[in-house]
Amino acid sequence: MSPDEIEQKRRRSLALSLVRAALDAVEPGVAVRRHLVVAGDRLEVNGRTYDLRRYRRILIVGGGKAAAPMAQAVEAVLGDRLTAGIVNVKYGYVAPTRLIEINQAGHPIPDERGVAGARRMVELVQSATADDLVICLISGGGSALMALPAPGISLADKRRLTDGLLRSGATINELNTVRKHLSAIKGGQLARIARPADVITLVLSDVVGCPLDVIASGPTVPDTTTFQDAWRVIEQHGLAEDLPPSIARQLQAGLAGELPDTPKPGDPTFDRCCNVVVASNEIAARAVREYARTQRFNAMVLSTFVEGEAREVAAVYAAIAREIAHSGQPLARPACVIAGGETVVTVRGHGLGGRNQELALAAALRLDGILPAMVIALGTDGTDGPTDAAGAMADGYTMERARALGLDAPKFLADNDSYHFFQQLGDLIVTGPTNTNVNDLTFILVFPERG
Amino acid sequence: MSPDEIEQKRRRSLALSLVRAALDAVEPGVAVRRHLVVAGDRLEVNGRTYDLRRYRRILIVGGGKAAAPMAQAVEAVLGDRLTAGIVNVKYGYVAPTRLIEINQAGHPIPDERGVAGARRMVELVQSATADDLVICLISGGGSALMALPAPGISLADKRRLTDGLLRSGATINELNTVRKHLSAIKGGQLARIARPADVITLVLSDVVGCPLDVIASGPTVPDTTTFQDAWRVIEQHGLAEDLPPSIARQLQAGLAGELPDTPKPGDPTFDRCCNVVVASNEIAARAVREYARTQRFNAMVLSTFVEGEAREVAAVYAAIAREIAHSGQPLARPACVIAGGETVVTVRGHGLGGRNQELALAAALRLDGILPAMVIALGTDGTDGPTDAAGAMADGYTMERARALGLDAPKFLADNDSYHFFQQLGDLIVTGPTNTNVNDLTFILVFPERG
Repeated sequence: MSPDEIEQKRRRSLALSLVRAALDAVEPGVAVRRHLVVAGDRLEVNGRTYDLRRYRRILIVGGGKAAAPMAQAVEAVLGDRLTAGIVNVKYGYVAPTRLIEINQAGHPIPDERGVAGARRMVELVQSATADDLVICLISGGGSALMALPAPGISLADKRRLTDGLLRSGATINELNTVRKHLSAIKGGQLARIARPADVITLVLSDVVGCPLDVIASGPTVPDTTTFQDAWRVIEQHGLAEDLPPSIARQLQAGLAGELPDTPKPGDPTFDRCCNVVVASNEIAARAVREYARTQRFNAMVLSTFVEGEAREVAAVYAAIAREIAHSGQPLARPACVIAGGETVVTVRGHGLGGRNQELALAAALRLDGILPAMVIALGTDGTDGPTDAAGAMADGYTMERARALGLDAPKFLADNDSYHFFQQLGDLIVTGPTNTNVNDLTFILVFPERG
Repeated sequence: MSPDEIEQKRRRSLALSLVRAALDAVEPGVAVRRHLVVAGDRLEVNGRTYDLRRYRRILIVGGGKAAAPMAQAVEAVLGDRLTAGIVNVKYGYVAPTRLIEINQAGHPIPDERGVAGARRMVELVQSATADDLVICLISGGGSALMALPAPGISLADKRRLTDGLLRSGATINELNTVRKHLSAIKGGQLARIARPADVITLVLSDVVGCPLDVIASGPTVPDTTTFQDAWRVIEQHGLAEDLPPSIARQLQAGLAGELPDTPKPGDPTFDRCCNVVVASNEIAARAVREYARTQRFNAMVLSTFVEGEAREVAAVYAAIAREIAHSGQPLARPACVIAGGETVVTVRGHGLGGRNQELALAAALRLDGILPAMVIALGTDGTDGPTDAAGAMADGYTMERARALGLDAPKFLADNDSYHFFQQLGDLIVTGPTNTNVNDLTFILVFPERG
């Protein structure tokens, strides 16, 4: 191998070790065990201490794509102290547990199996007393997987309204406002049902910025929206005239004060409630930063809130790499800048790819000849777009190598065909499904001059 | 005024002082005087020392929109030591000088007045000997303003070819390759003409990344492209058959070795040549960083290479502001992140605006309610798009204020009407023409919580 090839191999290996550091930090089991620690009879959760001798029962509920490995980890930590539990997971997203029931259900479209599971969760926590501890496990997909319409409302009616709102251009916030007021558990209502038990909610976040009231619609988190807000959304989108009768009845009862609204911030419901984010984009980003520092890189987290068109975001990342290579700002080399969030791709072509692969391809075009620079783009769920890759890596040599293979990079980009571009270069990152999801991460690396 | 209004006024005043710090650092006269210092009989330029007693004559040439104030500053520094000089400026871009002739000429389309001026520059430096010093003043627009076709080629012929290349989608690099081989002074040829005199070139850069061979087509900078490269570009764009005869003759003579190619890196032409960037995006960005630090801000330069669609770049900047507000990464508050470059706007609407105003509008949408955050977007020439504003400022209060005025921000953005949005809010930044241009700067500010 030429010195150049040796160097490129070394870089690639470092890149993959950063990917590994990110994924290890947010693996659901690892994440739960890191935040839920038993020492003697004490349970430590994020600085809070619970005296386990106090509890008559410990009950587990929850839902989401990562609920099974989370449940497994809770069993590993609390063992025979657990009393009972059930979590809803997407079909196939199972893991072996001893006591906690893994109930497979529909996602992204809720089904009756999910509703049945959610109803059993409600029954379980309804029975809880001040001597009980409820642990709620939340992860991506939890909103659909823990769907439980308010009494009298059918899944089909709820779906019909949701579809109408989507068609008329409702925002995700508007949608959630309505959903919370048609649900039996969303918007803090699960916490109200669990009262007066202690409640610990462990959250694996797949929403940018980690808003606890949004993830799985915040079943144990105060809600700031009201029946009035929900009604206003429905009116503004012109759907008030044509509401399914069961939904009209629910909202009218809410507006008339015959139904309690969702519990608000300051409500005593939340006095014994503790929501802990065990895995998030931020946790993954910080883990990469710490790992990069052990590899003697100057490292910083730029943001975990990045949204926007993938190829344009790539332009900014490439600009940062160029600046570091040029002036050692904002970090001296070797440098690692970590950015997270979730970009989008406006599809115009007919190729195969994902937002991370497209970001890497756009970065490759802009890093042409900037030999010290490298950009690694990763979807933490291991599935970037409809592909078997988690992302891709691009560097200052990528374009030269592409030209040598006769690959027309701008054409691949125009056709949204990043997968086939990186496949032919051997620069796809393939992890397989990771059982977790904390959105996307990009690592901007700038290596020292070879000397 | 309410405490909120007082705070907003304080922030606005700080924002404008950052704008001032940026513009002051790259004002052409200031920039020249900072880099060209006379101490006794010694001239200090960027660490090099020239013994002024050695020179029989000091000659000034150059071109660009800022050439007049640069010439003025050179007169202020070197006074009676100057022998003669001429610079080409855009019509109206004048400043009073005592000795150096300010020749007004066409821009962006070169005209015969510009050619006449450039010819007189060549005559002046042609006469230079080893006992002379030539100072060349380069700024934005210099390529058009110092146009001097090679002998036998007319401006009209050169223009016809350039237009053909543009129509067939040639890149700016391809265009420059051809231009340098049809010119009498571009691509280092002015330096060759000046040999064996000492040459100092002072550059005010309006090209992202400050590539010296690109700014004004690098009249005193080695060229890496050849007659063969120029010919290949013309062939690849299918223009070889239909070349104006004068251009065909020039290129054939070049290919046959009957004309010297442009001087290459390592050519002795450049032994006595010194190119100094006196003003650039990087210099402005660093000045803002230093000023922000005097105001007790944690400050860093993120990049001076940022290109991309303005509204998408804004998304990344807003994400950085959110991260700082959320976690104190990558900088603790109060924080100032400085980013420079030049974005673009894909115009889809019919409104009035510029890339900086549009960036600020897109940032305002994403900063809604992020009260500690502020984004200031500035075109350093004082003219952002076809408007009388240099840019605009947006913060976490902007959207609330816009709603109170009944302004529909997404609609203004969709219509590329950022000027009227910020005009109604009173948040335009108006500096008037600044006589300089080092592209665009954005300041991302995150203030402490008010206490």
